[in-house]
Amino acid sequence: MSNLFHAQVVTGFSHTLLSLSQVLDKAAAHAESHGFDMQNLLSSRLFPDMLPCTRQFQIATDSAKGAAARLTGVEAPRWEDTEQTVAELQARLAKARDYLASFSASQFEGAAERAIEVKTPAGVFSFTGETFLHRWAIPNFYFHCTTAYNLLRHGGVSIGKFDFLGAL
Amino acid sequence: MSNLFHAQVVTGFSHTLLSLSQVLDKAAAHAESHGFDMQNLLSSRLFPDMLPCTRQFQIATDSAKGAAARLTGVEAPRWEDTEQTVAELQARLAKARDYLASFSASQFEGAAERAIEVKTPAGVFSFTGETFLHRWAIPNFYFHCTTAYNLLRHGGVSIGKFDFLGAL
Repeated sequence: MSNLFHAQVVTGFSHTLLSLSQVLDKAAAHAESHGFDMQNLLSSRLFPDMLPCTRQFQIATDSAKGAAARLTGVEAPRWEDTEQTVAELQARLAKARDYLASFSASQFEGAAERAIEVKTPAGVFSFTGETFLHRWAIPNFYFHCTTAYNLLRHGGVSIGKFDFLGAL
Repeated sequence: MSNLFHAQVVTGFSHTLLSLSQVLDKAAAHAESHGFDMQNLLSSRLFPDMLPCTRQFQIATDSAKGAAARLTGVEAPRWEDTEQTVAELQARLAKARDYLASFSASQFEGAAERAIEVKTPAGVFSFTGETFLHRWAIPNFYFHCTTAYNLLRHGGVSIGKFDFLGAL
């Protein structure tokens, strides 16, 4: 049996980031075929006080990066949120996948018992690695991945759940 | 260290289902305060060929139920998709949480190596318990939970990510 933290965070999240990358390419083709500016889609929101689609992609990659770093006790790199184009967002997704791939399974040994503190504007939250994984890392990551997908779906991109699930 | 499959599927999914239950109550209060029929929200879609909000709640509970059953090798009960009202959807969410709570951690022993086959209209997919968890159970569950949330968010319900994450 492999390390389940490594399997989830490295293999699992990386798989979904690849799906998002393919969904993003479909969105770009959709914008082109309809003759509208892709920025109209990347700046879209489901409600005016929500973060736009571009930010959903950025936060999804941050969630993946932060999960791997925190569960292994390393310092996560800081990534500026400067992406604006599809090519730049694709590079961000690839950078996150490369970062995940840089972790070995052995780095996750003892992850379940690791004390993890998450500082947010809403407060400081304390977890063990185990509760961090299922209360913070996984819900956060999939929340932003699904919201990015839903914004593109709402914009008429022809995608379905199997695009989100990726190769099975 | 507890069983990570039990922690994720029983504790983790149950936690998010409780969040969804609270989000649903906020949606009902929103509909009442604006004087519109809650069915307008429960039948909403982000695109016309998408499943409506009610179905997202139903499938989220099915995903949780199916994950626990498949990882432990028991037969999942069949639940008819008859819910139409908020009260009925709340009962469905509670039923799913009760079902998850009926599993003990010891039932998940050996879950990582269990052979799991998922039959869908799109084909039959074969997993080990480990790949089933991170390629099917988790992405599916959070996909439908987040989509239910996003539909309510799109409908103007005053909710944010911390409503989705629940008590931390």
